Amino acid sequence: MTSSNAHSPNTQPYTFSQRAQKITSSTIREILKVTERPEIISFAGGLPAAKGFPVDTISAAFERVLSRNGRTALQYGPTEGYAPLREWVTQDLKRVGATDVNINQVLIVSGSQQALDLLGKLFIDPGSKVLVEAPSYLGALQSFSLFEPDYVAVPTDEHGLVPEGLTDERVAGARFIYALPNFQNPTGLTLNLERRKALVKRCAQANVPIIEDDPYGDLRYAGEALPGLLGLGREVGATVIRLGSFSKVLAPGLRLGYIVAPEAIISKLVQIKQATDLHTATLTQMAVYEAIQDGFLNFHLPAVRDIYKEQCGYMLEAMQQFFPADAHWTRPEGGMFIWVTLPEHINAYELLERAIKQNVAFVPGEPFYAGAEPKRNTMRLSFVTVSEERIREGIEILGRLIAETAISKAA
Amino acid sequence: MTSSNAHSPNTQPYTFSQRAQKITSSTIREILKVTERPEIISFAGGLPAAKGFPVDTISAAFERVLSRNGRTALQYGPTEGYAPLREWVTQDLKRVGATDVNINQVLIVSGSQQALDLLGKLFIDPGSKVLVEAPSYLGALQSFSLFEPDYVAVPTDEHGLVPEGLTDERVAGARFIYALPNFQNPTGLTLNLERRKALVKRCAQANVPIIEDDPYGDLRYAGEALPGLLGLGREVGATVIRLGSFSKVLAPGLRLGYIVAPEAIISKLVQIKQATDLHTATLTQMAVYEAIQDGFLNFHLPAVRDIYKEQCGYMLEAMQQFFPADAHWTRPEGGMFIWVTLPEHINAYELLERAIKQNVAFVPGEPFYAGAEPKRNTMRLSFVTVSEERIREGIEILGRLIAETAISKAA
Repeated sequence: MTSSNAHSPNTQPYTFSQRAQKITSSTIREILKVTERPEIISFAGGLPAAKGFPVDTISAAFERVLSRNGRTALQYGPTEGYAPLREWVTQDLKRVGATDVNINQVLIVSGSQQALDLLGKLFIDPGSKVLVEAPSYLGALQSFSLFEPDYVAVPTDEHGLVPEGLTDERVAGARFIYALPNFQNPTGLTLNLERRKALVKRCAQANVPIIEDDPYGDLRYAGEALPGLLGLGREVGATVIRLGSFSKVLAPGLRLGYIVAPEAIISKLVQIKQATDLHTATLTQMAVYEAIQDGFLNFHLPAVRDIYKEQCGYMLEAMQQFFPADAHWTRPEGGMFIWVTLPEHINAYELLERAIKQNVAFVPGEPFYAGAEPKRNTMRLSFVTVSEERIREGIEILGRLIAETAISKAA
Repeated sequence: MTSSNAHSPNTQPYTFSQRAQKITSSTIREILKVTERPEIISFAGGLPAAKGFPVDTISAAFERVLSRNGRTALQYGPTEGYAPLREWVTQDLKRVGATDVNINQVLIVSGSQQALDLLGKLFIDPGSKVLVEAPSYLGALQSFSLFEPDYVAVPTDEHGLVPEGLTDERVAGARFIYALPNFQNPTGLTLNLERRKALVKRCAQANVPIIEDDPYGDLRYAGEALPGLLGLGREVGATVIRLGSFSKVLAPGLRLGYIVAPEAIISKLVQIKQATDLHTATLTQMAVYEAIQDGFLNFHLPAVRDIYKEQCGYMLEAMQQFFPADAHWTRPEGGMFIWVTLPEHINAYELLERAIKQNVAFVPGEPFYAGAEPKRNTMRLSFVTVSEERIREGIEILGRLIAETAISKAA
């Protein structure tokens, strides 16, 4: 609190902003602290598989950039990003059906998480309505929350977001809808083509911009690739802001991603980014461009997809064997996560407490909900970084604990 | 504007936040566009001297990190930053008189500009009072402004910030004071020891945290090194938040800096940074630590200082020769900038318009003022990236234009 008497100094050493006072420690953060212990079998993480990182290619790219253009790579650069990398993005977007994007519609950012921060700054005033899937990506909720929106949840079912849920009342005055159409975090669900078309059509009609977050789109290992919302949206006049990331296709430790949006939005975002961190590291942008310019990802991604497919298979197989019949879960076509719906009377936090005592960890579903009553009988499992053997071991333990909980509650 | 009828959709394609609507194109940004033309002699830039970048050392450090710890370097990392680099910071702070800093008081950030963004989020609500020097660093004003503070200017004179200007009325309710004690941007002025002590004492008594921004401290090429506000503040119980940067001692294209503050502030900043960009690039942090861990900067910095000293000398010499007697300017002991006070009737924007026609550019002083009447007869000159010959040429042109303006106004 600040002093109300303009002539007396503060009586506390410092005063935090309202938004900072509202921040509480993240549940996932606290859980991850426990999961750092090596004996823990952790399905809680969101880490990509390090064995898929193309270390040699990246190393060679940094070496070439520094030896050929060292001084440019180490100097300040334009806020918009490194032009050849932005041009690469415009070309790459053709794969997801967006054929007419130009370089002025692309802003390079320091990882997709930064895109969320910049978009929060651009669109959210305290109390602004923001539409999110229920459940949605926790990191986005945390990022947007710094700007104090009012979340309104869009209904979802076993196929993901339900476009018919975008009623007049829900969309009225909404600053944007945030959606992850491919292998959603946390559910692993993919929006089918019919729903994608219905979503962009509805948002175009209602003048609600769509933020399409697609960090996992290139990690599809089953089913057929679908066009992104960006391209579909342009056909019907929707405003679509697409977020892309190099974290899963190359490596997250580089912190590199991009935003694609209409020029009027990008030019405002450029001013916001300039105030936020001037620009993303020049060297990193040049090295990533050096690594991927010749089609490297075409060779690299199939190997990465194989890793994820195999890992996902291990977990689905173990769940089939060890989970009780009254638990249900998603079968992702890509990405990193499986979403489990437990019998209704099981609280996933209580299950987690018992699981950690047996050295198994996961993330309860509750923190992924905003603007809606959370389903406390849900949990997110990541299958990416655990060995086959330990996946089986951990899932067996979880299956037994779920069955025991069901029995004890019934008794 | 959002629709006031909750049952009708928006009638515009999107609605920006209040803060985004207030952003106007930065003056410096527009000027820099002109100065990209190669024929322009630009004293407008804030770029460090690229010939001082240790390209080979940095290249070797990236190579070693990727060959030895590639997967760790490319994976997600802790929000707090790479522990050995944080430890290095605690040791390095002894040079500026802060002897008792521990690793939990250090947060690694993606360049000092990001520190300003995180601190804006931590401390500023709309209408919060923020104290700034008049003039102050434009990038900080832009960053803080996203959180809509009310700026109050602290008076300055030819020795920089005047501690006696921190009257009860000025400090009451202030969230923090932002100060650059070494070779300030834009004035080039350095706060003397007496004023440093008076500043921290006054802020301790008034419970106003000090943000000590020190990106140029290691670029001292004249006068004697002075203890930083962090160490002085701890002696008298002031809350000092110190910002450091690798941009000027190594290279800005890496985007790497750090915040030093009490643990209660750092732990809140960690949560804010997690929501903002998860963490700063792991690879960059490990490579910079690899480059500097063995005392590299002790060998490297003298060479960098020599470059800046020489460049500064060229400009001061040319100003002595070509500027009229009724212009005044600072004589920096370090850093990158000289601040010029022109005769009162000269408007620096008008001077700039005429200078650009003769292919010379600089930044008018006006945008550096917040919460105070700007002095329109001021300008900032950077001497860092222009050759000796072109410095002389550009200063001669400016001197002639200033003299002509003086005559035409008098006539």
